Amino acid sequence: MKVSEMDERKLVAHIANSLTGKGKNVIAGAGADDCAVLDQGGEEYLVITTDMLHRKSDFPEKMTGWQIGWMSAAVNLSDLAAKGAIPIGLVMAMGIPDDTELSFVDKIVKGMDDCAIRFGTEIIGGDTDSHDELTITGTALGVVRKGALITRSGANVGDIACLTGYTGSAGGALHALETNRDASDVITKALFEPFPRIYEGMELGATGAVTSMMDTSDGLALSLHDLGRASDVGFKIYENKLPVHHDLKKLFEDDDLLDMALYSGGDFELLFTIAPDKLELVKNKCDMTVIGEVIDNGIFIEKNGGLEELKARGYGHFGKSGKGIFKS
Amino acid sequence: MKVSEMDERKLVAHIANSLTGKGKNVIAGAGADDCAVLDQGGEEYLVITTDMLHRKSDFPEKMTGWQIGWMSAAVNLSDLAAKGAIPIGLVMAMGIPDDTELSFVDKIVKGMDDCAIRFGTEIIGGDTDSHDELTITGTALGVVRKGALITRSGANVGDIACLTGYTGSAGGALHALETNRDASDVITKALFEPFPRIYEGMELGATGAVTSMMDTSDGLALSLHDLGRASDVGFKIYENKLPVHHDLKKLFEDDDLLDMALYSGGDFELLFTIAPDKLELVKNKCDMTVIGEVIDNGIFIEKNGGLEELKARGYGHFGKSGKGIFKS
Repeated sequence: MKVSEMDERKLVAHIANSLTGKGKNVIAGAGADDCAVLDQGGEEYLVITTDMLHRKSDFPEKMTGWQIGWMSAAVNLSDLAAKGAIPIGLVMAMGIPDDTELSFVDKIVKGMDDCAIRFGTEIIGGDTDSHDELTITGTALGVVRKGALITRSGANVGDIACLTGYTGSAGGALHALETNRDASDVITKALFEPFPRIYEGMELGATGAVTSMMDTSDGLALSLHDLGRASDVGFKIYENKLPVHHDLKKLFEDDDLLDMALYSGGDFELLFTIAPDKLELVKNKCDMTVIGEVIDNGIFIEKNGGLEELKARGYGHFGKSGKGIFKS
Repeated sequence: MKVSEMDERKLVAHIANSLTGKGKNVIAGAGADDCAVLDQGGEEYLVITTDMLHRKSDFPEKMTGWQIGWMSAAVNLSDLAAKGAIPIGLVMAMGIPDDTELSFVDKIVKGMDDCAIRFGTEIIGGDTDSHDELTITGTALGVVRKGALITRSGANVGDIACLTGYTGSAGGALHALETNRDASDVITKALFEPFPRIYEGMELGATGAVTSMMDTSDGLALSLHDLGRASDVGFKIYENKLPVHHDLKKLFEDDDLLDMALYSGGDFELLFTIAPDKLELVKNKCDMTVIGEVIDNGIFIEKNGGLEELKARGYGHFGKSGKGIFKS
């Protein structure tokens, strides 16, 4: 069997299951969550995440060197954000084609550095390698107070489902690019310069009200499936509550718009759940929208008065789940 | 200017210099050493290192899947070893060609897992990605007692220069492969299944006698240059003291043998310095050889009664320093 015949999530689960298993200091190991979580004693957990990006599938042709660098750091910081963690450092390994201009590498490095600094951390190390295709693997380290760690698995039936920012903007920008439409700056930036929700994650974590959280980099629908599976619950969301940016509404209509809001990746917002009596604690902490609630099982959307099942469709590198829009 | 026109060490220094710089918790940042070193309070430093490997330049055709996995973990553990650190976890990002058999991926994962477990740690996370060329970026985390951290920069004139294990074995195995000679198992394993000196690093670190240390993955000569530059000292080593495995001596002679011992990469031994009065403390801690001493400046070898300068030649990904033998 070829890996391309396998859904990426199944491949990851298969790999994670084949590993020897976790030592007593490993709170969350491979395949369990957005980040691995280690307990080294003290009052904080150490969290770590890694992401490999490369030219062909992760950096659209129009992306600048600076944006490539920013993106490479941002995708990793976004995984830390989903844990409510404070970043403490990034290491960046770069595979660079031999004929790359040094000035282009400088721009990539500046983008990484700017992104790290913007979120209160820095590039502390890395590796350079000669590679046919531009390939960047970032690894981000963070810490989170032991009482404030948020996982994917804590959602309870009756919890409220919430989302930071907007959904569908990055996918919309890519589709606009492909169909020669003029997307606004804010939409284009969602694709080319994603803003990891580090500060929102920290604020949300500090409330103690959040029961589960992850980022939506693979798309909202797939993230709802992931969070539901990890917490052994379902979700019901409402079409008319989905936060879609008004600039995107000017570009696309109805079904196209909903498709982007649900199934396109690359947004890097936080999807999270809170106990119903905790909404007041949370709602002024960041720009967020209540989009639905946690139910027993199944992933549904209420639309035109009826309930529709949401497919586990979104971004994946392998197999048939992916639409090929962008990278987790 | 293209990156290929640049020596890899100059490229790394150039990138490191362009970063914004280090926060107060960063003891060693980008470009400074084998690992980045963070102080998160408590009694230990956190150390972290990353390495990108890929099919074309790092995994010889004859390497098995298991060996590819082992190697990918081992190169990172070796960098921890050079800090005297205890490994606490590895994250592994894998870029896998679509037509790869799942059974081959399984072997790679088994190799990584076995290597991590062999050295008392585990794979705690990772990423999978569809990639034209098999590419694996490992990141290793470790801890080291604050008093026991060893850097590249502490060597003093008059210190004794030492090496664990043997030098030239991996390069010799590659050359044997290319020239259809039958290398012994121990020589072949040095190339295909390098054994990171984690336990030796921890033992050496605990003595408090080691003033500087790094691994020899880029070759002994280049490592002497790197350690010399970081410590602002020179080295004099002795040809007749170099530990070359007797199986390698059966395969090659004289100048070829010396060339391998000095200039071929892939060995993953520890090169370290100790104060001259501390030799007794150290010499029974592991399999090691005194190969020379620290001098004011210049990197020299005493050979046939005369002194020769050692060129900064060995493995590099870019530019002219590299012979193209294997990966740091």
